Amino acid sequence: MSVCLLPDRPPLPAPARSRGSVALVGAGPGAPDLLTLRAVRMIERADVILFDALIDPSILDFAKPDARRIDVGKRCGRHAVSQAAINRLLLQFTRQGARVVRLKGGDPFIFGRGGEELDFLRQAGVAVEVVPGVTAACAAAAGLQVPLTHRGLARSVSFVTGHHCDSPNQAHDLKALAATGGTIAAYMAGRTLPALAENLIGAGMPASTPAVAVQSASGPAERRCFGTLATLPAQLAEACFEGPTLILIGDIVGLAEQGRETVSEAA
Amino acid sequence: MSVCLLPDRPPLPAPARSRGSVALVGAGPGAPDLLTLRAVRMIERADVILFDALIDPSILDFAKPDARRIDVGKRCGRHAVSQAAINRLLLQFTRQGARVVRLKGGDPFIFGRGGEELDFLRQAGVAVEVVPGVTAACAAAAGLQVPLTHRGLARSVSFVTGHHCDSPNQAHDLKALAATGGTIAAYMAGRTLPALAENLIGAGMPASTPAVAVQSASGPAERRCFGTLATLPAQLAEACFEGPTLILIGDIVGLAEQGRETVSEAA
Repeated sequence: MSVCLLPDRPPLPAPARSRGSVALVGAGPGAPDLLTLRAVRMIERADVILFDALIDPSILDFAKPDARRIDVGKRCGRHAVSQAAINRLLLQFTRQGARVVRLKGGDPFIFGRGGEELDFLRQAGVAVEVVPGVTAACAAAAGLQVPLTHRGLARSVSFVTGHHCDSPNQAHDLKALAATGGTIAAYMAGRTLPALAENLIGAGMPASTPAVAVQSASGPAERRCFGTLATLPAQLAEACFEGPTLILIGDIVGLAEQGRETVSEAA
Repeated sequence: MSVCLLPDRPPLPAPARSRGSVALVGAGPGAPDLLTLRAVRMIERADVILFDALIDPSILDFAKPDARRIDVGKRCGRHAVSQAAINRLLLQFTRQGARVVRLKGGDPFIFGRGGEELDFLRQAGVAVEVVPGVTAACAAAAGLQVPLTHRGLARSVSFVTGHHCDSPNQAHDLKALAATGGTIAAYMAGRTLPALAENLIGAGMPASTPAVAVQSASGPAERRCFGTLATLPAQLAEACFEGPTLILIGDIVGLAEQGRETVSEAA
């Protein structure tokens, strides 16, 4: 007997238009050895690899010599290749029967726009597989030796994006998250930290709450800047972080004992 | 010039009492091939491995033939080995100069009590490294093909634990999280789902919000049960999930097109 509801909508028809396939593969946060074994296997088998700007080039060494490697990286503030163009490429190669790997930084389903590419591919009838990856917040936390959840300090952890930090929706979300007292990890938040901090302090989070900015977590360009919700925006502006920047906010940041380089030493 | 505040507290002295070391290693969500390359390397080099109940035995095949393998797994409701006893073992082996790997399911810093073991080891002057892993929510989402964040549907994702779902603190947190409209991933929530769902509905989250329970995400014993906040508690009680169960709650669950097996088929 079935005890679970089936969906109201019928499933989409099985892939018919192409024999190729796409794997949306999380490449992890930056360090090549934080790739999973499954991701390595997918890359080894791929005929075509479409990769983001944040991917370490050495990861592509796992590919077959004759695999096509296409940089579709979106760099901060300018789109190297539009999402529509990426979608067209994915479709074009799968229609040629290729095994395509769409290699994305971190995990494909945490602020990776993986859902949008998945939507498109499903509509086009392309077979899709998704390979999870180590997300940047976990890598930053491991490097800092700061637990994201911790008994007595953080009962939850929430991931938000720094994009649209000045929107009313985001302000609303941050107000709610400030009330939990849990850890907040803000992705791609280097530019919008002032609005982020202002919203959280406005929602009642103490200005003295420890916070740390981590650029390029786990990669060779990793840099860190420790402060508080009140001080970090100005510190970060002066530090001129350039890579993708994650902000960890919460009492757990005060647990960091190691890796507290000042940005002046790393710069 | 330093632009970042240094901590008020001086750093702890460098490890002195032992020459051994401990790596807190995330083994990923279950499937052995979701281990990272770094985790594999740490296991290969280890003299001693202390592993949790959720670890797939084949992961231990990466270890040296003469490495000691110690099961310290905590099974639901009963502690195989107490945390204090685990701490004693870690200290004992490092004092003997061993390279110890403490292998934990998922990521060590998301509900893995990694912070507590780290605290203990630091106090004892033991050198510690932390290796992040793929956390269960990412693995479940990848398997379901459900993005954790998605434009227009989920601006954030929050991880909570099902433990203490009946505590006032947890009710307070859930009320706040319900207000964000973001995705909620509740770890180890199989037993406490009724309280969890009641709290979220009480906080104003629609009872019709899609929800799915995933047992043993990514592993051979994975099972899934789809429903809504209103229906899932009763469905899950009937389905008798036995392994660690993650609950994903939010509109994104409605995007699942594949893998909607009823539990009756999997059981």
